[in-house]
Amino acid sequence: MMKFEKDDAGTRTVDIGRGCVFGGPRLVIIAGPCTVEDRVQTLEIAAAVKEAGASMLRGGAYKPRTSPYAFQGLHEEGLAILAEAREQTGLPVVTEVLESADLTKVSAVADMLQIGSRNMHNSVLLQAAGRTGKPVFLKRGMSARIEEFLLAAEYVLETGNKNIVMCERGIRTFETATRFTLDLSAIPLLKQRTWIPIAVDPSHGTGMTSLVPPMACAAAVCGADAVMVEVHGHPDKALCDGDQSETPEMFYRMIKELQNITRAIGRTV
Amino acid sequence: MMKFEKDDAGTRTVDIGRGCVFGGPRLVIIAGPCTVEDRVQTLEIAAAVKEAGASMLRGGAYKPRTSPYAFQGLHEEGLAILAEAREQTGLPVVTEVLESADLTKVSAVADMLQIGSRNMHNSVLLQAAGRTGKPVFLKRGMSARIEEFLLAAEYVLETGNKNIVMCERGIRTFETATRFTLDLSAIPLLKQRTWIPIAVDPSHGTGMTSLVPPMACAAAVCGADAVMVEVHGHPDKALCDGDQSETPEMFYRMIKELQNITRAIGRTV
Amino acid sequence: MMKFEKDDAGTRTVDIGRGCVFGGPRLVIIAGPCTVEDRVQTLEIAAAVKEAGASMLRGGAYKPRTSPYAFQGLHEEGLAILAEAREQTGLPVVTEVLESADLTKVSAVADMLQIGSRNMHNSVLLQAAGRTGKPVFLKRGMSARIEEFLLAAEYVLETGNKNIVMCERGIRTFETATRFTLDLSAIPLLKQRTWIPIAVDPSHGTGMTSLVPPMACAAAVCGADAVMVEVHGHPDKALCDGDQSETPEMFYRMIKELQNITRAIGRTV
Amino acid sequence: MMKFEKDDAGTRTVDIGRGCVFGGPRLVIIAGPCTVEDRVQTLEIAAAVKEAGASMLRGGAYKPRTSPYAFQGLHEEGLAILAEAREQTGLPVVTEVLESADLTKVSAVADMLQIGSRNMHNSVLLQAAGRTGKPVFLKRGMSARIEEFLLAAEYVLETGNKNIVMCERGIRTFETATRFTLDLSAIPLLKQRTWIPIAVDPSHGTGMTSLVPPMACAAAVCGADAVMVEVHGHPDKALCDGDQSETPEMFYRMIKELQNITRAIGRTV
Repeated sequence: MMKFEKDDAGTRTVDIGRGCVFGGPRLVIIAGPCTVEDRVQTLEIAAAVKEAGASMLRGGAYKPRTSPYAFQGLHEEGLAILAEAREQTGLPVVTEVLESADLTKVSAVADMLQIGSRNMHNSVLLQAAGRTGKPVFLKRGMSARIEEFLLAAEYVLETGNKNIVMCERGIRTFETATRFTLDLSAIPLLKQRTWIPIAVDPSHGTGMTSLVPPMACAAAVCGADAVMVEVHGHPDKALCDGDQSETPEMFYRMIKELQNITRAIGRTV
Repeated sequence: MMKFEKDDAGTRTVDIGRGCVFGGPRLVIIAGPCTVEDRVQTLEIAAAVKEAGASMLRGGAYKPRTSPYAFQGLHEEGLAILAEAREQTGLPVVTEVLESADLTKVSAVADMLQIGSRNMHNSVLLQAAGRTGKPVFLKRGMSARIEEFLLAAEYVLETGNKNIVMCERGIRTFETATRFTLDLSAIPLLKQRTWIPIAVDPSHGTGMTSLVPPMACAAAVCGADAVMVEVHGHPDKALCDGDQSETPEMFYRMIKELQNITRAIGRTV
Repeated sequence: MMKFEKDDAGTRTVDIGRGCVFGGPRLVIIAGPCTVEDRVQTLEIAAAVKEAGASMLRGGAYKPRTSPYAFQGLHEEGLAILAEAREQTGLPVVTEVLESADLTKVSAVADMLQIGSRNMHNSVLLQAAGRTGKPVFLKRGMSARIEEFLLAAEYVLETGNKNIVMCERGIRTFETATRFTLDLSAIPLLKQRTWIPIAVDPSHGTGMTSLVPPMACAAAVCGADAVMVEVHGHPDKALCDGDQSETPEMFYRMIKELQNITRAIGRTV
Repeated sequence: MMKFEKDDAGTRTVDIGRGCVFGGPRLVIIAGPCTVEDRVQTLEIAAAVKEAGASMLRGGAYKPRTSPYAFQGLHEEGLAILAEAREQTGLPVVTEVLESADLTKVSAVADMLQIGSRNMHNSVLLQAAGRTGKPVFLKRGMSARIEEFLLAAEYVLETGNKNIVMCERGIRTFETATRFTLDLSAIPLLKQRTWIPIAVDPSHGTGMTSLVPPMACAAAVCGADAVMVEVHGHPDKALCDGDQSETPEMFYRMIKELQNITRAIGRTV
């Protein structure tokens, strides 16, 4: 059913440039605000996460929101802010693209294109993103089985683009104490099935600030190649997802914990 | 949170033309193949479902498939076949659109635009479809809560397009005996919250040919305005979803049952 | 895997006595309070549901509660009240048993022993209840697959006791608008697999008073042999499950709807 | 809603004797066969897990099985074998009790009473087990929310028995690649809510031999006080759960990994 089965070579590396390589010995830390809200906020967070040790900047310019009355992102203005943040920090940028028509604009800025959970089944977008040749950061659909997640990745691989990273970000279950249920067993399971590097997003996966650091450490230990974390200077004022964002201080402490843990397993941050 | 709350006027009617009206006393029966596979197959099924009493033809020209190696539909050729089937039978056509870029082509043929389960959270597509002014047939995301389903509808309503029908099509649960779990309680629940007509798709909702007729009858009794059913002349040879398709004979008997049941509750088929 | 597979004889009848037969042409209506709260309340509800057309009385004397601080039932005193209600109304009584040690006491009063959702996997209790020879009313576990539900029934059948009814009562899903998701497709699916009569509990299955009548009608139409409904004189003062209880007036109207619907399909209430 | 809220004192220790203490700096490793199949098998596994570094022996004498046709355990004979294994190895024993009537027999042998996932809602059993004064090992119901899990623990605490450990063992979701979805976020979440030590069972939680070691390491890193693992000399011949059992060699390597990881976070195995 799959064409791109795992061979003996282990995990393939995906090199984003600027020193950011997925699938190597170094755990990639992707951090930044859920949404690019304004220039000053974004530049401050970018500087803080760079300082703390992140190797990639995240931030949404085009936001997929459940409600049409929620903030939908700054669009081109947001992309320009992300580009400026990259210049200032040297961090490559991953940002979400919502439809094929936006690919040209987003690709002009992004170092890596994110396909979000709500679009994992959007085969048209997967193919179009694949054909740009840009690295693709593919999030698991919130109710996608592992098999379906792998097949979504095949839509990208089929275009000839092998620069893809798959990201576990929590699945929808009956549990209401957390926003989603982070399925960490997906990490070793995917590692058995594919050579694609695997990332984890504990911010969306739990929806709770206090659960992000322990889940990030657990993800690193069971084989994740990257961790994506939302960081916000003032989570209580965030336009989106404040409940699951770390402050820069929390993020800094989390990186220290990750350094400690990864050292024990022969990796670095 | 919702702008378009239910008022006292009950369900709003959505008039598709050619005698097909959602939300009135008559239960709308939408039937046809999962996928438009070829001209002869489609015209035969269209004639059969018209003869049996359907009031709308369904058929996929653009198919969202989990695997890139599955049949993806005939695209423009499929649309042309659907147009011919409409001319021969007089049945209006509903067919799925997968992205904004296809809206012009699909709208030129479709009497109603289907947004599938995998695109329920695709706000860009919802808005673009809404702006065409065409009636929209919005399926529930397979892991969408009722609240999220209503908010997806608001993306269409916000464009000024009130011609929308919402369709329950099964949700993803732990049960493996059926393809999805058809949530019929969503029908009376949605009826309490919105004036939008409600449809049910027991073919996808159960994934089993034998469960479609009883679930269609149950849906009619608890308030559905429409039932969408897959019909195929030779389900065992279908390129897609054969396990959940009715033969024309089964479909004919199902219509008889529906006529009997709806008569008891003061409605017709 | 199953020893007691369906044969050609269709559904087997389970005769409780006092005119209450599951699996025949008449839809069995089981009604009463969630919990036996006091003597007067129970006798009043019993009289009301008898008057409206119920053929069996339900009421909990031993209650399985999620919290140790919630009302746990009147135990022996509750059983005595149920016995008195039976004498006054002539309705046979079904009531829950929580563990083997209580079987003697509960069997002395109950015409039918209920094994609740939380005990569906309690094989010790299933076997012990089966060996009493009393008819068993087995509810589906809230996360039990159809296969597991059938195997739980086999624990009873293995004891030689064939007087069993299986009851769909809602499964646990991600949906939060309803208490559980009532899986009506389980009815025709179970009918294909077993000769055991099938009941549905829309009160627990939805958790909402307003959804009970439409779901009861839908259940009847897709093949249910029985419907179990919670009725309370003052739902707002109920010690348990008030949000999902019908008043006697609502229950009376629901019975009228069920009579109308079942007439159309050649059955009675 | 909870009476036994967390105070400032952090996690309470539960001392089982023979050097096994839950909630202290040392990660407790519980290991052994799913089921006590025979004397030689059990003594061999017990010796092997002791040698590798386990601090408690697990093994089922009374097995809750989905099917009445599956092996149900050796009962008293199994308890006697467990007692002999304890004498030979010095490891304390945890074993499951299925109903109150068995408590005297099981308590006579067990150092700790396991309440299994299928009985988490069995309040009668929880209270009876609590009243024995024996330490209780309470597994999360496969569809229990965190709130419900905590309330089940309160049934034990209410009896005055504070010697309880709660165990995450996987929840039922739509994913079919694993047997259950192991919810590791439950560990830090429970730690915020209760002073009860928390264990994790990656064998049942994943159902796959190869996923047990990485999930055990991840659990240790995010705060678990104990890990419960199934070990079998010949998993392919196991009467129960062979697909999720480690061989003694795998178990030995897993312990080495756990020692390495826990050292980094200031704990021991």
